[in-house]
Amino acid sequence: MSAHPVALVPSEDDAAAAPPGLAVAVYDADHAPPEHLDAVELYVVPYNRADAVDLLADLPALRAVVLLTAGYEHVLPHLPPGVALHNGAGLHDASTAELAMTLILAAQRDLDEWILGRAAAHWDRHLTRSLAGSRVLLVGYGGIGRALEARLAPFEVDVVRVASRAWSDARGAIHGIDELPDLLPGADVVVLAVPDTARTRGLIGATELALLADGALLVNVGRGTAVDTEALLAEKGRVRAALDVVDPEPFPPGHPLWTAPGMILTPHIGGGSATFEPRARAYVAEQLRRFAAGEPLLNPVEEDR
Amino acid sequence: MSAHPVALVPSEDDAAAAPPGLAVAVYDADHAPPEHLDAVELYVVPYNRADAVDLLADLPALRAVVLLTAGYEHVLPHLPPGVALHNGAGLHDASTAELAMTLILAAQRDLDEWILGRAAAHWDRHLTRSLAGSRVLLVGYGGIGRALEARLAPFEVDVVRVASRAWSDARGAIHGIDELPDLLPGADVVVLAVPDTARTRGLIGATELALLADGALLVNVGRGTAVDTEALLAEKGRVRAALDVVDPEPFPPGHPLWTAPGMILTPHIGGGSATFEPRARAYVAEQLRRFAAGEPLLNPVEEDR
Repeated sequence: MSAHPVALVPSEDDAAAAPPGLAVAVYDADHAPPEHLDAVELYVVPYNRADAVDLLADLPALRAVVLLTAGYEHVLPHLPPGVALHNGAGLHDASTAELAMTLILAAQRDLDEWILGRAAAHWDRHLTRSLAGSRVLLVGYGGIGRALEARLAPFEVDVVRVASRAWSDARGAIHGIDELPDLLPGADVVVLAVPDTARTRGLIGATELALLADGALLVNVGRGTAVDTEALLAEKGRVRAALDVVDPEPFPPGHPLWTAPGMILTPHIGGGSATFEPRARAYVAEQLRRFAAGEPLLNPVEEDR
Repeated sequence: MSAHPVALVPSEDDAAAAPPGLAVAVYDADHAPPEHLDAVELYVVPYNRADAVDLLADLPALRAVVLLTAGYEHVLPHLPPGVALHNGAGLHDASTAELAMTLILAAQRDLDEWILGRAAAHWDRHLTRSLAGSRVLLVGYGGIGRALEARLAPFEVDVVRVASRAWSDARGAIHGIDELPDLLPGADVVVLAVPDTARTRGLIGATELALLADGALLVNVGRGTAVDTEALLAEKGRVRAALDVVDPEPFPPGHPLWTAPGMILTPHIGGGSATFEPRARAYVAEQLRRFAAGEPLLNPVEEDR
């Protein structure tokens, strides 16, 4: 532990993996910050601690901030001018795509009904939907979207890809977001994996929901702001939804969406699974190595909002 | 509808798909059987109707029975001597493998906790396990096992395959069932997809459960008899389980396994999803075509019990 650290990292494991010669200290947001922060040039922000951004105001020598989340909108208001921001893009892709598959499959096979019926201890069978044979509209073709596409591939589905702009690759067409009104009516499952930007806020509102077929499933693992919560609630019983992200978060207790029929809610835990930890530690170690070597850091945030 | 049908099929759709010249009648087990059963040579048993086997005693000209289930043990005691039995092997593979993935993912990502917490409407996050990075022991390498292997492939898992006898293919070793005691301790997830035979009954008992690591997940989508229910209950809180099949079925109301911690139960609905119906109808049509053409029927049951 250095008396005048140049880099702040969120765990002892990160500190242990720092290159020789780089003065590091640990700040995990559970304990008070270390003393003598005047030399800190690199701050790796503790994961999932909204209050950890407060420290940005106390780092006069800061040059770069590294996040372990893909989302960075919460940091922007606190970022001093001239400080570079690097996000955790990719770290959560596998975990979030895995949760998207969990939500899709659970909704298609009525797992919520079987689980809620467990207390009644009844053996009451019925035929369910399947994922096989479904058309899945994949909205957002970044890291999570690609990871999800790979996981959907063996499930005998028709995957229709939608990105911000239309293009194509070896597997066929990728539709532009402006084609959404034409694509929504034919979808059995719509998965949203888009970031929070000016273009994605309110992407799925009353107009778009009305285009969905009866019984269609809306899954959101990107950002809650992409779906108009009240418009979705108004469609309860006709459109189903499985949401890991909602607007607002944390979602207020007592909101009727919690108990609306055909809704599965998880509290933004897409990225928060065991597979994240080793990826996060390897990412921090690589950023520290690059910083010490004077190489460009990974994942600079290009502003597009 | 023929006055003296030669084939009995479970639906009007099947009858409509019969080849010209084949006299068919519909028996769905919901209505009384048609009259004049003396000429029936082929009986396609209605799906999921245990009482439908009673009709076997009333078909003096019977030569062949076709089932829409992979399991056939329930029919054997009622099968007249000399009558060929054909099962529905393969019809349920996609649907059952899909449910196995549903159960594995739901258990790893604590979906039962989120769903049961829904009524409490609380936004209470915690880190979960992941499927990514797990070692999955796939016990049973028939149609369901292979369909499940394909679906597991993109999830960043280490799949260890176990069949009745050791062999190997292009993807590596397939372990024999006698190696199970060596393989169980290293597994994060054990999936059973074995039929009900003398060799699989009680396959996972107290001895085998004791070999599982703390927190390991046992998934059963094959036959309930493979797991000793009381031995599993005795491990509650240490070993987790997600079971679509249990012993006995229907599972008795009030049995403590319904509400034991770390248990997810679904009522044998692995094969019962929307993707089954088109496969079943195509299978019946092909069996009728073969029967009328004098060709061997698909899926003759080789007795191995």
